[in-house]
Amino acid sequence: MQRAAVLVRRGSCPRASGPWGRSHSSAAAEASAALKVRSERSPRDRILTLESMNPQVKAVEYAVRGPIVLKAGEIEMELQRGIKKPFTEVIRANIGDAHAMGQQPITFLRQVMALCTYPDLLSSPSFPEDAKKRARRILQACGGNSLGSYSASQGVNCIREDVAAFITRRDGVPADPDNIYLTTGASDGSCFEVACEFPRAFQIDNALISTGAHEEIGPKTTILKLLVSGGGKSRTGVMIPIPQYPLYSAVISELDAVQVNYYLDEENCWALNVEELRRALRQAKDHCDPKVLCIINPGNPTGQVQSRKCIEDVIHFAWEEKLFLLADEVYQDNVYSPDCRFHSFKKVLYQMGQEYSGNVELASFHSTSKGYMGECGYRGGYMEVINLHPEIKGQLVKLLSVRLCPPVSGQAAMDIVVNPPVPGEESFEQFSREKEFVLGNLAKKAKLTEDLFNQVPGIQCNPLQGAMYAFPRILIPAKAVEAAQSHKMAPDMFYCMKLLEETGICVVPGSGFGQREGTHHFRMTILPPVEKLKTVLHKVKDFHLKFLEKYS
Amino acid sequence: MQRAAVLVRRGSCPRASGPWGRSHSSAAAEASAALKVRSERSPRDRILTLESMNPQVKAVEYAVRGPIVLKAGEIEMELQRGIKKPFTEVIRANIGDAHAMGQQPITFLRQVMALCTYPDLLSSPSFPEDAKKRARRILQACGGNSLGSYSASQGVNCIREDVAAFITRRDGVPADPDNIYLTTGASDGSCFEVACEFPRAFQIDNALISTGAHEEIGPKTTILKLLVSGGGKSRTGVMIPIPQYPLYSAVISELDAVQVNYYLDEENCWALNVEELRRALRQAKDHCDPKVLCIINPGNPTGQVQSRKCIEDVIHFAWEEKLFLLADEVYQDNVYSPDCRFHSFKKVLYQMGQEYSGNVELASFHSTSKGYMGECGYRGGYMEVINLHPEIKGQLVKLLSVRLCPPVSGQAAMDIVVNPPVPGEESFEQFSREKEFVLGNLAKKAKLTEDLFNQVPGIQCNPLQGAMYAFPRILIPAKAVEAAQSHKMAPDMFYCMKLLEETGICVVPGSGFGQREGTHHFRMTILPPVEKLKTVLHKVKDFHLKFLEKYS
Repeated sequence: MQRAAVLVRRGSCPRASGPWGRSHSSAAAEASAALKVRSERSPRDRILTLESMNPQVKAVEYAVRGPIVLKAGEIEMELQRGIKKPFTEVIRANIGDAHAMGQQPITFLRQVMALCTYPDLLSSPSFPEDAKKRARRILQACGGNSLGSYSASQGVNCIREDVAAFITRRDGVPADPDNIYLTTGASDGSCFEVACEFPRAFQIDNALISTGAHEEIGPKTTILKLLVSGGGKSRTGVMIPIPQYPLYSAVISELDAVQVNYYLDEENCWALNVEELRRALRQAKDHCDPKVLCIINPGNPTGQVQSRKCIEDVIHFAWEEKLFLLADEVYQDNVYSPDCRFHSFKKVLYQMGQEYSGNVELASFHSTSKGYMGECGYRGGYMEVINLHPEIKGQLVKLLSVRLCPPVSGQAAMDIVVNPPVPGEESFEQFSREKEFVLGNLAKKAKLTEDLFNQVPGIQCNPLQGAMYAFPRILIPAKAVEAAQSHKMAPDMFYCMKLLEETGICVVPGSGFGQREGTHHFRMTILPPVEKLKTVLHKVKDFHLKFLEKYS
Repeated sequence: MQRAAVLVRRGSCPRASGPWGRSHSSAAAEASAALKVRSERSPRDRILTLESMNPQVKAVEYAVRGPIVLKAGEIEMELQRGIKKPFTEVIRANIGDAHAMGQQPITFLRQVMALCTYPDLLSSPSFPEDAKKRARRILQACGGNSLGSYSASQGVNCIREDVAAFITRRDGVPADPDNIYLTTGASDGSCFEVACEFPRAFQIDNALISTGAHEEIGPKTTILKLLVSGGGKSRTGVMIPIPQYPLYSAVISELDAVQVNYYLDEENCWALNVEELRRALRQAKDHCDPKVLCIINPGNPTGQVQSRKCIEDVIHFAWEEKLFLLADEVYQDNVYSPDCRFHSFKKVLYQMGQEYSGNVELASFHSTSKGYMGECGYRGGYMEVINLHPEIKGQLVKLLSVRLCPPVSGQAAMDIVVNPPVPGEESFEQFSREKEFVLGNLAKKAKLTEDLFNQVPGIQCNPLQGAMYAFPRILIPAKAVEAAQSHKMAPDMFYCMKLLEETGICVVPGSGFGQREGTHHFRMTILPPVEKLKTVLHKVKDFHLKFLEKYS
């Protein structure tokens, strides 16, 4: 075979079509015949197989397109094919994607983006001057005045200045543009959202489930990557809240760090207790070197908004125990409870005085994906990192400098978020109206959801103080637990699967986020429009009652 | 200290400002005093230091903002401050960023992007109907008809269909949308471009320089990540061309794979010789398990365009030696030499018959960053991966599914590239004119550059058959080599530094890309406008002659 092929190759082949398989010389015919025989046998072994592939990648266990999401897709296809079901559509209440659920983009934001994209529009009378002003500012800072140019690795300079100015205004404490890094999103993993299902039971305290998130989850991975070191009992420990947004467990596993769980207090609106932080830390020290404390505020999936005192306590704890603080604050605009208010970790840190503000290493994250903007697809975000050792700053810049610059259109979107219309500007009124409409709507839906769920026997729902999810606790009768086990599913996975099959509603089982042993939850977004959300809530209620009855 | 802090925390603090540093209770005063004393000592040790950080990250050696780029930045600042120099501006001929050098975006592309961004414009008479048609097509495929929604992890479905249709038209062989994955760029690392300088001598055959590229370099990393396994002598070997685009060496190092260099033939227009592939493979088998063969066509930095026969030979070699082929084809629109033509690896593979087309595992890459579009900032790209083992397809989807979906605006940009105006459509004429202008201009500059460099004693420049760079070989006299050594620099780094200091022209030393021992090169883009490019070329010539004289 090989010889024939060699003959073919070396033979003169004046045909433009080349020697492979088309020549009519005898050597070629021989080769062709040999090839034909070979291909009539089974197709050749692949180089890349389950056996030969990267074992670390194979080990990555997670329910990407997990059972529920896969099922949702199948059901959608069946509906399309006209197969009759007890419902007419699948409702994707599992994804934190506001626009997909009908939320409208903010007009001003899209106007500035359009002007940046197609600068001819700068001469169009259809666009307000305040939008044009911002577009010009962004464009003049881009190479060739184009969103199509690469930016510097830390991001477009004037956008970093605008972010710093925003933070300064928001907090009343100064922010330095040099500590600002524009990023590709903050923490959101779209398909993460979709994929948040875990076929395995979540193991408490030594949670080993990897969700395999990696590349492109951007800034948090970068910071964690810098921090993680050591082996065996010296492996870096990273403290994360349970329930958590599973990005963290994924990255921690990827980096071969140790996940250190601290439990939020469900009995107390998912509050963070410093005593629980102490407990977790104390136990962790046996088997790792805890160095990092991750906070999500407002929380995902739990929606709690931390009180100022709680934030101070956490900061003091981090200072005392020498922990690098990561503060995920992407839902900072999503605060609904009238008793709650967003306080940034940065602000509180500074107001605690120099010993804290000069020493606590803190990275804070924000993005364009949530809030009132809902611009997930643009992948805009930033992080502010303070009190880095000067030599580490160089290492961070090194790491960031070799990744691709964040998409410039996303950077532009972030700029508009931090530099919105102000009173007196032409677009201010419409902007404010649209923003208040979105947030007011979310607040209404948050309350609606909490109230309705709490009317259902066997469902308990903490107040949705913020963010955009409900994370109700569900009672799953013993018989249902058995049924789940016989299907080799976690009980809440079984529940969610049944919910999907009987109502078309797609939510994420609590086992994906972590929960206290013996408790069960699911996470549902509050993003569908009000009327649809009410329908969803009633359907969940009806399903739940029937489920309880069936398995009692 | 700790006790005082505890006292303060537990004390009742009715003030909204909280206990930290502002309370006037005696315990608090005590705590404050203690804090004050502590902060008057040296600032506290950081958690994250060079000693405590991730050693793998620290080991990442590369010249991010390397000496030349740093120097370029310094010089720009000095010029801004009015310091007199022999030149008035720094010319960044190191970055493959067309828009930054004045190339104009394609009107049609930006029109469709603007319509997608701000759909109100769909009712504006200022936009042609063919642009609106495409915008509507893209938007109806997005969640909530918005670029702000997440897309599926493989990318927006109709865009994948459009990519498959494009490939089918281009090659005359069918492409399956299911094998298409939309990505965040293809191979480009913006800051990579900027950072392509290596202070260390490039070690031949066991090249160990890591450039630390990682996260977000997207598709190639993903494929390589899947492929890499084994330890010691079984570590996966990845064959790459020398000179190479340093992304490869970086990723290979990151993944702990083994870099296997094959040398392009400078005497023969940087051609790829299969005998050299055989040589490299044979030697590599001693110390690794070679599984991957990377091709860049047209080449970067070398600009060679592979002949069809060469491609057939490479494919046969890969088939024979069981190598997974990675074909980086981002410069497929940048072919200037009238004797050259772009042939995709996919097309040639299929035309070689079933034994090849049914078996060779091939991943091909394209992006929006080069060509006639120059849209680097949008980070649009795709890869087509064929002949994957069915179980591996699932693994690839798994890996992609947990990364963030590629920015949807970039996906839209890619769609327009694969679905441009056709004859008969309103925008066709202007589109063709603009495209031909850009490509014609580049072709002219390619020839101009080759001709001028070849007139300079001590500079030899192969024809720039394609891509957008010149990679001339430079004679560096022995005395200059000594001078370089005394400055602890590679000779071509020394040359490029002097060039920058004396002319303001910023290029990248060949040692960054790899070159045969004892040879020296630099890479310069041909992106500046024609007149500026001529000036640049003359300045380089003058500099070179003076350099030769000085160091003879």
